[in-house]
Formats: sequence, C-alpha cells, structure tokens
Amino acid sequence: MSDHCHQRAAVPASLIDALRGLLAERLSTAPAVLEQHGTDEGWHAASPPDAVAFASTTEEVAEIVRLCAADNVPIVPYGAGSSLEGHVVALRGGICIDMSRMNAILAVNNEDLDCRVQAGVTREQLNEYLRDTGLFFPIDPGANASIGGMTATRASGTNAVRYGTMRDNVLNLTVVTPDGKIIKTANRARKSSAGYDLTRLFVGSEGTLGVITEIGLKLYGIPEAISAAVCAFPSVEAAVNTTILTIQAGIPVARIELLDALQIRAINNYSKTDHKEAPTLFFEFHGTEASVKEQAEFVESVASEFGAEEFQWATKAEDRTRLWAARHKAYYASLQLEPGKRGMPTDVCVPISRLAEAITQTQADCDASPLTCTIVGHVGDGNFHTLILLDPENPVEMAEAKRLHDRMVERALAMGGTCTGEHGIGFGKLDFMEAEHGADTIALMRAIKNAIDPQGLMNPGKLVPGI
Amino acid sequence: MSDHCHQRAAVPASLIDALRGLLAERLSTAPAVLEQHGTDEGWHAASPPDAVAFASTTEEVAEIVRLCAADNVPIVPYGAGSSLEGHVVALRGGICIDMSRMNAILAVNNEDLDCRVQAGVTREQLNEYLRDTGLFFPIDPGANASIGGMTATRASGTNAVRYGTMRDNVLNLTVVTPDGKIIKTANRARKSSAGYDLTRLFVGSEGTLGVITEIGLKLYGIPEAISAAVCAFPSVEAAVNTTILTIQAGIPVARIELLDALQIRAINNYSKTDHKEAPTLFFEFHGTEASVKEQAEFVESVASEFGAEEFQWATKAEDRTRLWAARHKAYYASLQLEPGKRGMPTDVCVPISRLAEAITQTQADCDASPLTCTIVGHVGDGNFHTLILLDPENPVEMAEAKRLHDRMVERALAMGGTCTGEHGIGFGKLDFMEAEHGADTIALMRAIKNAIDPQGLMNPGKLVPGI
Repeated sequence: MSDHCHQRAAVPASLIDALRGLLAERLSTAPAVLEQHGTDEGWHAASPPDAVAFASTTEEVAEIVRLCAADNVPIVPYGAGSSLEGHVVALRGGICIDMSRMNAILAVNNEDLDCRVQAGVTREQLNEYLRDTGLFFPIDPGANASIGGMTATRASGTNAVRYGTMRDNVLNLTVVTPDGKIIKTANRARKSSAGYDLTRLFVGSEGTLGVITEIGLKLYGIPEAISAAVCAFPSVEAAVNTTILTIQAGIPVARIELLDALQIRAINNYSKTDHKEAPTLFFEFHGTEASVKEQAEFVESVASEFGAEEFQWATKAEDRTRLWAARHKAYYASLQLEPGKRGMPTDVCVPISRLAEAITQTQADCDASPLTCTIVGHVGDGNFHTLILLDPENPVEMAEAKRLHDRMVERALAMGGTCTGEHGIGFGKLDFMEAEHGADTIALMRAIKNAIDPQGLMNPGKLVPGI
Repeated sequence: MSDHCHQRAAVPASLIDALRGLLAERLSTAPAVLEQHGTDEGWHAASPPDAVAFASTTEEVAEIVRLCAADNVPIVPYGAGSSLEGHVVALRGGICIDMSRMNAILAVNNEDLDCRVQAGVTREQLNEYLRDTGLFFPIDPGANASIGGMTATRASGTNAVRYGTMRDNVLNLTVVTPDGKIIKTANRARKSSAGYDLTRLFVGSEGTLGVITEIGLKLYGIPEAISAAVCAFPSVEAAVNTTILTIQAGIPVARIELLDALQIRAINNYSKTDHKEAPTLFFEFHGTEASVKEQAEFVESVASEFGAEEFQWATKAEDRTRLWAARHKAYYASLQLEPGKRGMPTDVCVPISRLAEAITQTQADCDASPLTCTIVGHVGDGNFHTLILLDPENPVEMAEAKRLHDRMVERALAMGGTCTGEHGIGFGKLDFMEAEHGADTIALMRAIKNAIDPQGLMNPGKLVPGI
C-alpha cells in the first residue's frame, strides 16, 4: 500500500469556542478522548481529531457541520468505533462528531415491520428493545456496532445470506449534508420509483457525503421455528461445496458460516467450547417447524455427501445464543492465539462458483507463511475473512502480512469479486479501488463526492482515491 | 400539473450526417419512426426526436453520445417504449437511441444464479431463453418491457413482494456516461462495500445520468412447487386486510394481487374468463410441496376470517399461465371498457398499515366521479394502481381525471407514501417530487445530475424538477 499523506487542517480556537458554546461539556479536547476517537478496531495508523463533539440532536449535528464548514475544518462522523479499515481515523484532524448519545429508538411500527432509530443506537440495543414485540433486526456484524456506522459502511454479517445487508434493509435516512442542511432520502413506502436512490447512495458512503443522523429500518418477525447446527468437514473445500450446493438449490438458509480449523481452536480456547478442530460450518434455519425440518434435512444430506460428520444440533435458545456468541467473538478469539500481537483483518467477496478455489488458495498461502492466520466466512454470500496476526512494530512481519493481504484481494478481483464484501474501504483499501472499478468509474465517484462535498471536509481521505 | 416548457434543441445537419456515417441505415429520420419514438404507453403529450439511432454495441452508443455532446444535442434512451410517465418523450427533440437491437443474452452463470444481458433484451425473451436452465427472472411489469428500460425506471411487478424490484435484482451495469465513457458500476460479487453504490444510482435514473447498455441480473431457481389461487372478497377492505395479515405473519407469498370488481369485469370481457365480479385477490405460492401447502393453508384461513369465498386453485401450469396472462393484460382490458377512450394510469405506494384506507378512499373518489376507473394493486408491497378512462380531447374529462389523479397521489404522500411505487417520474410526476422529498433533497438530486451530466443532455426534462 502506498502512503496516504495528509496535512492536518488548522482548527481555529474560535471554532472550538463556538462548539463549546453549543455543546458545553459535550465538547471534549481531553487527550484520552481524542486518542480513543483517532483509531478503530483495525490495524491502521491512528490520527486523533482536534476535538470530539458529542451531539445529541440532528439540529445540533447540522450546526456543528455549518460551523466547521465556515472554518474549512474536516469532520469525521463516529459511531461505535468498531470499523476495521481506518474509517474513523482523523487523517487531517478536525472535529469528530460522536453519535453515541443519539441513541433513541424513535418509533417501532409493528404493522409495517419497520422502525426509526437515531444513528447511535447499537444493534444489540435495538434487538433488546424489540424483544417483546416479536420482531427483530437481523444485520449483525461481529462487533456491537452502531446502526449509523453499519449504514455508513454497508455492513452485513451472518444473516445476510437470507435477510440481505444494510443496503437491503435501510428504508430511508435523515442526513446532514456538508452544507449543514437536513434532508430525508425517502419515506416509509417499501418501494418507490420517485427519483434517484439517495438512500442507497448514502448507505456505504462512509461519512464522505454527510452525517447520517436517523435511520428507518426494515424489521422481521421472529420465525416460528429456529434451529442451529454445527458440522465438521474433512476439508475447507468440502464445507464450501456444501454451501454452494445449498445456495444453488435455493434453500433459504438463514446463516451458513465457515470457520477453519485454527479458528475453531481459537474459539474453543476463548469461549470454552469443545468443537472438533476441523473446518466447520455453523448453520441456522428459520421458518415454520415443517420448513426448518425440510431445510435441515436437505443440507444434512448434501453435507454427508461431502464426507461431513453428523450435525450437532442446538435447538434450545440458550444453546443457540452460546453458539453464535462464540462465532461473533471469533475476531477477539483469534487475537488470543498469540497474545500481544495485533490482527490485520480483511474480507473479500467472490462469485460463489469461485469460492472454494478462493478460500483454498488463500489457505495455502497462509499455511506457507510464518504468520498465524485464521479464516472465517459468510460463505453463503461468497464472502470470507482472514485475520493475520502480527507485531506491527516488526517490519518483516508487517511486510509479510501485507503480502498475504494483497494476494487475497488481488485473487478476489481476478475472480470477478470485490476487495471488500462488508468491511468497506476507509483508507485501508483505497489502493484497490481503481483496480476493482477502473479509472473512469472512480472519476464518476469523485464527481459525485465533489458535487455533494465541494469543500472536501466530510471524512477526508476515505473511500474515494485521490481526494 | 404545471406546464413544462421545453425548447427544441438545434440539431445540425452535420450531426445527422455523422450519425448516418456511423450507423448507415440504422439511423432513421422517417416521420413514422420519429412519431413512434416520441411517445410511450401513457397519456402524456408526444414530442418526437429528430432522429432515431438503432445502436448495436456499447461502443456505438458511446460514439453516438460523444457526437451528440459535441453538438450539445439531447439524447433520449429508448427501450420498448412501454413506460407510462412520458419517459421517452423527446421534450427538447434530439437523438433517440433505440436499444432494441442490442438484444443479446451475453452469459448465464447457472452456478452463480446470475446472467448478463444487453439492454434491449425483453423480460419475456430472457425467460424464454432460460426455460431449459431451471432458472427464471422474476421481475414482471405488465408490459413486455426491455431489461434496460426496467432498470432505468426501477420497475417491479407482481413478484416484487417476494423477489424484490429491479433495485434488488441488478448486480451491476455497463453504462455510457454523458461524456461518452464506458463504465462498469460493479462486479459479480453478491455484495460489496467497495465505494459508492453506483449500480443503485443508475437503477431508476430514467436515462438522465447515462445510457445503460448491459445489465448483470440475479436469477432464481424455479421453485419445486408453485400453486396459484383466485379468491373473491366481500369488500376491497377485506381483501386488503387479508394481505396485511399475510405480510405481517411473514408468509413468503410470491404474488398477492388485488383487482377491484370493475377490473374483474374488464378482464372477464377481454380474456374470456369467468371470475366473479367482486374485489378479488390473485395469489401465487412458491416453495417446496410442503411449504406451498403450509402457506396456502395459512392464507386461506385468514381470508375466510374476512368473509372470503373459497379459493379457486390453478395448479396446472397452463391454468396458472392463463391466470397471470389475464392479470398482466389488465391495463389493456380496462381500456376496452370504453373503446375509443384513453387511459390515465398512475400508481402510488404507502406503508402497508395505511393501504386499506388509501384504497377505499381512492375507490370512493372514483365511485363519485363520472369517469370510469379501475384499481389493481401489488398489495403485498403497499403499491396500487388506478386507470382512469377519458377522452383526452375533452377538457372537462381531462380536468376531472387530473383531479382524481392528484388526490390519489396527495393522499399517498400524506400517509408517508410515495407518488410512484414503480412507474417512475418521467415528466408526468415531476410536480410531486418536491412535495414528496422536500426542496433540499431535490437540490441534492440536482447537484448529482449536474455533476454527472453538466451539459444537461441526458433525457432532459425528466425526473429532476427544474432542470
């Protein structure tokens, strides 16, 4: 990766004064707060903002944006800080808008299966709130991310194979645009042909086009029946081929997650489980009792053709919760394989016909490397992740990790895939944007960015190369 | 609706000569061809282009666009001409690019459940081609529209409640941008977080941002079991409430279509069917044998609670085909209720909790009007249509039709809905854009339009008010 040089913007004392006038003690310049907000859960270099503004209303966000714009000061929206590609790193300094206090659930419309939340609501908070309604929100990146951050990074997770990603589940947004205006991108209708799809333009825009302050989301009825199973396979290829056949047969599986043998060992250690240390699929089936049984029987028969062991079922709610909690902690579990090291996480997504090839070649690279590396995947979507453990102070390890990382991404691109299925670009993957999209497509993205944010103040240095 | 005044652009003879040099006999200036291309299937005033270019390759489209741009001449992309809001009307004249000869199916990837087609392929052609693969493409607006046109208008149809709209089913696009460059918006991965969602920006852009020349689409396996049923209800409200409960229960119904009593009469006359003249739902269930049975039993029990008559089943493929062919011809059937009159079709979409209210109030308006008006709806989405019959030469009828039309749209907006669920804006609904979205959101759409099409040549006068 090339260096992305960024000069820090000048932040006038008068701006800090004005923000303090607006926010009082909700404006912080405490070093610990700045440091915490200058990095995410990934491996990229940190860069703190000059101040952190804890906003409490959309109008306040608009006022902060107007004040910053008047002084040409960069703005970095911040949700839960759980991004992985440096999304919240204040490359040019400026004002970080922390959305965590905007954590109200504004409306739940049971009849329409939708809700409206402020951007700082986390996915766990939302599902906790929904618990007694019979509804749930399915999108579940590993971390307890904020809904605003999930929207901004077009997040997905283990349920995406059935319920889609944030792209599919955001109905509308309230956004503060870079000129400090407050807009709504759409209304509550399930579909519309009325104009440009601004909702989808802001979903995945990583804070570079405005600050998302409220989100309308689709909700789903909790299925009548849910069952989960774990199944060990003789090889990664056998597990992936089971996945491919399941998807091609149109089985509406809710979750189908691959974990390689090393990842299973990490989870066993971290979460005190006793899964067999082998390439493993975690499944979940949603539907009526009859439909869940039918789905499970089909998948079990496919798996056994590929030499899988027997399914271990988790039918009780608490067993399922334990199973998926362990899966969601896979990242933290992997980090514990070599305490003291950090992780370089990355994800790619390929057409499912190329998935077995993509994963087995990646695994061969990892096996041949001195570095430790785990693989997990939302394999129903063709999406998988590696976590490479390294000492960031050791240039040899860093170079080797980057080599593995880049080979994985380049392989995905060569297979007609994408450099990131769900983590996003931030500044960590900027260098792959042109290889993936071509120069003319990047020029079009740049034209959109410049049209909406002509001062270039919104999360500068992220997503669009060369800005 | 206010007048949208448009001055015709000057089209230099040298441009016509250059286009003829490129296309030979595939450039037409024959009056009948111009006239045919200056109108669609809706009720709006016609305006012919100055020439029609029948393009055969993406590169040719790019060359046409470059030539037009050099002379500042408007460009109107044209698919099958089956739009309803004047989308293809050449308000400022210029060059119509007819895509019908770009009708090659470029690739079908059975393993990945996707395909790639040129923009002129029609939905019926695609499904005919797929027939032996076990796959199908579900999006079905009434007309045999082109895939390019369906993409440009964000079309949906009867299957959208289960399979989504064009928004959900387009994987990627090849687009000729207004500067004559050829871009791809995305690759074949099922999901990606790599940059702005240009695919979704062009889906529904109605030719105002560029010419869509190739489309990557999701495909689906033909379900193991399909069954369809017709059911008459004592009232529109009873039918709509059955729909609402079905959706809220999460039943994955594939189609759930409302037809009012008059629409049933029109279909009986036109398609020689003998459905009872009452508010009626047409259903289709997709899945395994067991799942289809389960879905049907649930819906039948709900319907009977609302006083419905017995379901009439169409289990044989030819009976289902006849049923849905009759439904797809509803528009033409309605026109035959009063031969010689034309139809003013419109559609709106509301949150499903407001659907019964929206339809019954609309129907009361229609009943109180001297004009004849049929109602059909993709009610699972909250989307419904009216077709008002009128003599466009009669100003009293025209004014009354517009009054009914505007009341229906304004009611939908007041209920948190949209002025169009699937027909699009064209220039027929331009006047509702600001009421639906607000001035600041429209300003953002305008900024995007101006950034991508600074000369304002792409389908001018459509979708974005005030351009």
